[in-house]
Amino acid sequence: MEIPDVVIVGSIGYDDIETIYGKKERVLGGSLSHAAFGASFFCKVGIVGVVGRDFDQQHLDLFKNRGICTKGLKIENGNTFYWCGAYDEFNNPKTLKIDLGVFQNFRPELPEEYKKVKYLFLANISPELQNHVLSQIENPEIIVLDTRARWINERRDELMDVIKKVDILTINDEEARLLFGNNLIKAGKEIIKLGLSAAIIKKGEHGSLLFMKDKIFSIPAYPIENVKDPTGAGDSFAGALIGFLSQVGFNEENMKKAIAYASVIASFNIEDFSLDNLKNLTREEIEKRYNELKEITRI
Amino acid sequence: MEIPDVVIVGSIGYDDIETIYGKKERVLGGSLSHAAFGASFFCKVGIVGVVGRDFDQQHLDLFKNRGICTKGLKIENGNTFYWCGAYDEFNNPKTLKIDLGVFQNFRPELPEEYKKVKYLFLANISPELQNHVLSQIENPEIIVLDTRARWINERRDELMDVIKKVDILTINDEEARLLFGNNLIKAGKEIIKLGLSAAIIKKGEHGSLLFMKDKIFSIPAYPIENVKDPTGAGDSFAGALIGFLSQVGFNEENMKKAIAYASVIASFNIEDFSLDNLKNLTREEIEKRYNELKEITRI
Repeated sequence: MEIPDVVIVGSIGYDDIETIYGKKERVLGGSLSHAAFGASFFCKVGIVGVVGRDFDQQHLDLFKNRGICTKGLKIENGNTFYWCGAYDEFNNPKTLKIDLGVFQNFRPELPEEYKKVKYLFLANISPELQNHVLSQIENPEIIVLDTRARWINERRDELMDVIKKVDILTINDEEARLLFGNNLIKAGKEIIKLGLSAAIIKKGEHGSLLFMKDKIFSIPAYPIENVKDPTGAGDSFAGALIGFLSQVGFNEENMKKAIAYASVIASFNIEDFSLDNLKNLTREEIEKRYNELKEITRI
Repeated sequence: MEIPDVVIVGSIGYDDIETIYGKKERVLGGSLSHAAFGASFFCKVGIVGVVGRDFDQQHLDLFKNRGICTKGLKIENGNTFYWCGAYDEFNNPKTLKIDLGVFQNFRPELPEEYKKVKYLFLANISPELQNHVLSQIENPEIIVLDTRARWINERRDELMDVIKKVDILTINDEEARLLFGNNLIKAGKEIIKLGLSAAIIKKGEHGSLLFMKDKIFSIPAYPIENVKDPTGAGDSFAGALIGFLSQVGFNEENMKKAIAYASVIASFNIEDFSLDNLKNLTREEIEKRYNELKEITRI
């Protein structure tokens, strides 16, 4: 009945992915997988998600080998969520095939001890499901929320309702512009006006912007020459962010450090397909890039 | 016969500009105008360019009031270069009308004392004209080069020839990708391989990347909520860069500072139409934003 440091709710799936660097079939993907791996370098993680009967034991083992608690992972009759996509040379994804499988009827239920968690990350699922998770959580300290353009377009009101209940929103630049117009500085400030403690706009290769009550920070991306597979970059980023925060607590200085660590984890994530690079990553390699990142931006 | 600290060669024109913030007619523009103003906050500037008989005395006075030497500015029979353009909400420009006027036959000739200048900025003109200027310069310490997508597309070989002769290349992200492919980190390294001391990739709202022999730095943009007119942002940036460098000399630390100052000047440039905001800018306002910029990126 150990309470994890961080609980993450999201999707787990199998991906067929094609990039200019090659093609991989049936690799482990989904927002939850990337986020859980990202967080696992910093803290004890519990995951809440669903997979089908086809889910491979080796992938369950992958989670366990990283110390990730899978008590909240349901195995249902049917197939695991499946996504087939291709990225162009500018890293823009195109969905070629999608099969929701058991994810279609996913209704996240937190194991009893997870309800007492202090740090919760709601990775990309529908605002309705995110709200359902919020109704189960007892006394959280920090809730981080992610979303996708789809929910901004199709479920704006429900999404805004969820956003107002969380502490930190992480979205990418395209989503921020969809929410509050083209100027990212204005968009970030508008998010803060909703009552959040922090908003992070993820800009991929351009790094990220952090907005707090009356401050703005800019943290660069760790420079990567070969982006083999951008899938899950934002998820591993957000996972690392909350994982680090759970160990040091929320404040301005820690947020900046957390984003720098998040950038580092995302940089490893995109250097190989799926979770291949995160699987064997060491804390030493993380610290090396973290120190380099600090140096890159020091004026 | 005083030698300026910095000589800048480029275009001067009249612009009709429309953005989502409004429309302005016949305002002072051109790469040379924005660059000269940007540099003038840091050093003694001499300009080399051409205007027509229609060029307004008040605009000559504008240069003189900022201490900019106009000895290299030719006034020819005909009209001043004219550009009419509109920006969409994403700050993408569209040329609606263009009339080269006297700029069509521009052949830059340096006044005798300018040939001894130590810091030269070749703003956007054709590679052929840039080469012609290089043939006149006697013993420069630092040459900064800018260019446009047009020359990469239409005069690649001539442009590459010029690039190899300079010390610092400043280009925007779109141009960098045109030159060396989609990955900006690779593109920057490729430029350095040509033998340059530094390459700066300007990314607008996303700040800029600095590449040196074996180092990469990332300097954020100063956050601006209301981008009234993006015209000349990159030119004022490059002008400020070389202006600052001319006072402190070229090295790694000074380059980072120079880019931070350049970002600050560009941030003022885009907050109003044409040079309206730079006209009355004080050194105190510049220093304030410079210190804020350092803070924005400190982890």
